Amino acid sequence: MQPSTQQAPGRPLSVAIVGATGAVGAEFIGCLERRNFPVSRLRLLASPRSAGKRTAFRGQEIAIEALNERSFEGIDIALFSAGSGVSKLYAPLAVRAGATVVDNSSAFRMDPDVPLVIPEVNAEAIARHRGIIANPNCVVIVAMAPLWPLHQVNPIRRIVLASYQAASGGGAAMMEELQQATKAYLAERPFAPKVLKHDYAFNLFSHNTKVDFATGYNEEETKVVNETRKIFGEPSLHISPTCIRVPVLRAHAAALTVECERPIAPEEVRAIMSKAPGLRVVDDRINNHFPMPKEASGQDDILVGRIRRDIGDPSGRTVALFVAGDQLLKGAALNAVQIAERLPTVRGAAAAA
Amino acid sequence: MQPSTQQAPGRPLSVAIVGATGAVGAEFIGCLERRNFPVSRLRLLASPRSAGKRTAFRGQEIAIEALNERSFEGIDIALFSAGSGVSKLYAPLAVRAGATVVDNSSAFRMDPDVPLVIPEVNAEAIARHRGIIANPNCVVIVAMAPLWPLHQVNPIRRIVLASYQAASGGGAAMMEELQQATKAYLAERPFAPKVLKHDYAFNLFSHNTKVDFATGYNEEETKVVNETRKIFGEPSLHISPTCIRVPVLRAHAAALTVECERPIAPEEVRAIMSKAPGLRVVDDRINNHFPMPKEASGQDDILVGRIRRDIGDPSGRTVALFVAGDQLLKGAALNAVQIAERLPTVRGAAAAA
Repeated sequence: MQPSTQQAPGRPLSVAIVGATGAVGAEFIGCLERRNFPVSRLRLLASPRSAGKRTAFRGQEIAIEALNERSFEGIDIALFSAGSGVSKLYAPLAVRAGATVVDNSSAFRMDPDVPLVIPEVNAEAIARHRGIIANPNCVVIVAMAPLWPLHQVNPIRRIVLASYQAASGGGAAMMEELQQATKAYLAERPFAPKVLKHDYAFNLFSHNTKVDFATGYNEEETKVVNETRKIFGEPSLHISPTCIRVPVLRAHAAALTVECERPIAPEEVRAIMSKAPGLRVVDDRINNHFPMPKEASGQDDILVGRIRRDIGDPSGRTVALFVAGDQLLKGAALNAVQIAERLPTVRGAAAAA
Repeated sequence: MQPSTQQAPGRPLSVAIVGATGAVGAEFIGCLERRNFPVSRLRLLASPRSAGKRTAFRGQEIAIEALNERSFEGIDIALFSAGSGVSKLYAPLAVRAGATVVDNSSAFRMDPDVPLVIPEVNAEAIARHRGIIANPNCVVIVAMAPLWPLHQVNPIRRIVLASYQAASGGGAAMMEELQQATKAYLAERPFAPKVLKHDYAFNLFSHNTKVDFATGYNEEETKVVNETRKIFGEPSLHISPTCIRVPVLRAHAAALTVECERPIAPEEVRAIMSKAPGLRVVDDRINNHFPMPKEASGQDDILVGRIRRDIGDPSGRTVALFVAGDQLLKGAALNAVQIAERLPTVRGAAAAA
């Protein structure tokens, strides 16, 4: 087999973003720019109705192109965030054209042939890819990445998770709906919801994904269980999730009650998490300063705090904590770009730059 | 001892509201009106700066009076909601003047001589009062009242609670701050928080009560544990609480993971809660319609849904659910008025009316 031109070491890379006009798409562009990703050419792909619009990248205006079957010719790395349907259709075409795909949709996450990666947890899985690497669900990244270093020291037996998920998880349209609904409420104007079935102004609700009639769990909660098990390599880890959408714009939070194999002191958990990459401990009991979505927004790190011995478990094996992380960054675009940065072609190109 | 004139059966009652201008005070007035509470005279008490303002009650304008040591002369029932300090100072004076006090503050809740009552749970405790009956913390009422009928059938061993608490828990000032901060954000104007230390607009945060430095639990969470144990008469019930303030105006919600003594089917839990007074099951898996603060607001019932077998506990002994209830009504004013309605003098007056 002739080596593909894409494999030439040290060559700067052609990158495509699919879903370039979405909330995550905009963050893809920002992450590539800010992290000096070795891009020689950036192709911005979206639906035909966005074609022709222009977006800035490193001081240059790039025209958005309508996604089609030939969009991936000459592309080395394709970052997808345009929904499952688009990924299912176009990611295999991108791979066939020679690109490596990092896909932010749920399309391939549970495929046994597709690595599902949080780099701080299972970066080694990247090497096993066959063209597609899946980026996990946003609440899985934000809530579970902080638990991995603890799991290494004192294996986790069970996690009870209650999420506080931002509008951004539903895309730019849901962020807009939250703001429009709130504006209308404050102005005492009526508001007809477009994205949701109910009013989002100063309101919260069970996650808006389909609920399995038999089990009562919604798709988001099922992702929390299945994806965490796959990423952690723990197929029988016990997880009790409740996923709730709150009127917050772009950072997810979660209350976690985590039972370990052996008794664990909160001081030890704090020490472990203080040293872990990608986490920032915000745990000031005196000033009541803990992780908040507003402070997590725009940050690469996941904020971790409220670390305490669970008073509900006298065995001392359970620790409680509260986390917050930017849904669009570490929950989506940043994690995907961090995956791409670990690909040999990207490392080579970055080293040569 | 001469029987006090307040005990004369069937006589309509003089009622005082302490904290009449607050968020709960307004709901006290509404509840008395709406529930045809047998009021002959209503005295509205507040701080001196509100004195002279007028508030409507049953079509009459009532002038607000400044609270003082003589405010309780001739008063039969005093409903307090003006903070712990005011209750500590004035509730004993009201009792000395012959009134029965229902106190919405935390001042007396853990006093062994003071009944702490959710009528649907422990109405029988009312009879043991010595002048003061305490109204529980709002999140305790909203989250725990739904669990009592389950506890009767299959004793609860442990509760993991994550709350989603509304601004109203912090009073009218915090509700105002949420709206002003949000208005400013939407208008891209700067906003200087007054009530809180940080921006509340589209943000959430760990409950703003003092955090115990040693345990890491805040006062709200400590109330959840201690008050639930007292109300349920279960001094060693295991409870794992995380209390979070969310940008919602006036209804609290909570995610509950509840471990029972024996395996329990969600259908059984649903049947139990469907029959229980004060609860409304909202659990529509097909239409993804579950308890929401917006729908709980202004309602007397606590909404209960997302009732499901916890997939994180293979023993089948754990059920998960999500609840929402109006913090100002069932979480405060309504519950207090329901307590008062069970006092013999009030029953007598209501029967005579």
